[in-house]
Amino acid sequence: MYDCVIIGGGPGGVTAAIYAIRSGMKTVVVEKIGVGGQIALSDIIENYPGFPSISGLELMSHFENHAKGIGVEFVSADITGIEVDGDKRILKTAGENIETKTVVICSGAEAKKLGFAGEEEFIGRGVSTCATCDGPFYRNKAVAVIGGGDTAVKESIYLSKIASKVYHVHRRDRFRAEKVLQDRIVTKDNIEFVWKHTTEEALGDVSGVTGLRVKSVDTGETRDLDVDGVFVFVGITPNTAFVDCDKDEQGFIVVNENMETSIPGVYAAGDCRVTPLRQVVTAVGDAAIAAFKAEEYVSELEGRAYDKVGAQGVTLK
Amino acid sequence: MYDCVIIGGGPGGVTAAIYAIRSGMKTVVVEKIGVGGQIALSDIIENYPGFPSISGLELMSHFENHAKGIGVEFVSADITGIEVDGDKRILKTAGENIETKTVVICSGAEAKKLGFAGEEEFIGRGVSTCATCDGPFYRNKAVAVIGGGDTAVKESIYLSKIASKVYHVHRRDRFRAEKVLQDRIVTKDNIEFVWKHTTEEALGDVSGVTGLRVKSVDTGETRDLDVDGVFVFVGITPNTAFVDCDKDEQGFIVVNENMETSIPGVYAAGDCRVTPLRQVVTAVGDAAIAAFKAEEYVSELEGRAYDKVGAQGVTLK
Repeated sequence: MYDCVIIGGGPGGVTAAIYAIRSGMKTVVVEKIGVGGQIALSDIIENYPGFPSISGLELMSHFENHAKGIGVEFVSADITGIEVDGDKRILKTAGENIETKTVVICSGAEAKKLGFAGEEEFIGRGVSTCATCDGPFYRNKAVAVIGGGDTAVKESIYLSKIASKVYHVHRRDRFRAEKVLQDRIVTKDNIEFVWKHTTEEALGDVSGVTGLRVKSVDTGETRDLDVDGVFVFVGITPNTAFVDCDKDEQGFIVVNENMETSIPGVYAAGDCRVTPLRQVVTAVGDAAIAAFKAEEYVSELEGRAYDKVGAQGVTLK
Repeated sequence: MYDCVIIGGGPGGVTAAIYAIRSGMKTVVVEKIGVGGQIALSDIIENYPGFPSISGLELMSHFENHAKGIGVEFVSADITGIEVDGDKRILKTAGENIETKTVVICSGAEAKKLGFAGEEEFIGRGVSTCATCDGPFYRNKAVAVIGGGDTAVKESIYLSKIASKVYHVHRRDRFRAEKVLQDRIVTKDNIEFVWKHTTEEALGDVSGVTGLRVKSVDTGETRDLDVDGVFVFVGITPNTAFVDCDKDEQGFIVVNENMETSIPGVYAAGDCRVTPLRQVVTAVGDAAIAAFKAEEYVSELEGRAYDKVGAQGVTLK
């Protein structure tokens, strides 16, 4: 039986593993596809302190080498459920189940896609789903923002301070974002609203995105926006279907400040949890806390097991 | 006036600055002595993902170069107070005051010292105040733990899984740690309790610590413990005297999940806040959230200022 099984091999999962194995726990990372997670899709990351500019793939290979160098084991499996059996946590897979005392869920989340032409092709090369991550690459350039909810409006305001111009494209004639955000976005002189337009295609070449083709819902006419970046904010879906614990409406896992979920011995960290910010730095911070608390939990279990057999004559003075 | 002033140039402060400046805020880091913080005193850090083994000084020079490379400004000053004047936050110094819309406090904390010979000399070379940070360097070696509170007992248990032997030195004949921890520590066969002994001296040479000299409170006799590491857990003091916000009994700043203190526009991150774990990774995660929320706050202020002058004819459809 493992002391700690970590689900997910992104920045959070690898960090949880580094902390878990250093604390002496028998640890394994279970990853569906391979080490890296969503961040491995990023072309350039410039906000993980210590690495001024690095690709997601390269950063994650540093993480992976770090973990493997201290003996962290990675296995490939798709976890389909978590069962509780006394002090045992049983992870269901298509093959053999995995038994462990604690679980750290670092399964991440994925931005929803709109499905326009070029959206997948240019992801990380002009198409982005994170203004905090990629906004600064468009300093004094024009960008398009797509979406009508709180996040879209908030990120549009955020980008308006960095980019020279923001085209805010929305298929309806009004935002569904909260009133205070709507009041704020209209104060931004460099945001042009492109109402009642759907997105047709991200235009571009080998260098990346060069424009965005949008289409009027009323007339069917298309218009090409001259932009270098396209930010799509149409929601984000956590990878949490396999676990039956407290979640918010969108499926993000609810944790306390110790990263404890509603299932004792099961922790969640990073993008898959309810959190104010989804970044590499926040995932690694969460993950360290989760692994630290998992070790305390295992230590408590051992204490309890000992109590059952009696104090064996050892007494404190 | 600054948008964001960051107090402290450790891992948290530098990260807050990276996030703040990338979001377009006018930002400065105010540091008392120099960039680096407490972590710069660490000889080796092996749990900041991406850097398998690096000195604190070197890691912080990577952080500093990262921040300076994107235009972060550092100034030297000792902040002695924070005053609130409407939407202005005024930082008091011995010289000119600094005015800002938001403040991110990353002022850190310091482990208390016992004052025995060699304690300062061997810090980072055998004397440690953090088992999570330095425990793994003593795999299958003997260590001494000093202290009688919850942290000392918890960390002693933690170290007992990594080290071959733990001498737990305490000046009294019982721990003041909570009962459940006391019950747990007696189950550890490789912990030897050295009751009613004070610490005289960390013994060592150029290679670092080689032993610990302790002295019986009753007889005055000394005993040399053959250890490679000495962990001192006699408390930790946050550097928060300059700010008058909600704090816990020890002076750590109370924040919510957005890193907001009880003063609007003032955030706290890292070691100086009430937190389950004090590590580089947790400080950088906190700091990113604090800077992100500070930017939202500034954005809200601008929206409010705009409301006062009227919507200037701009309306949302």
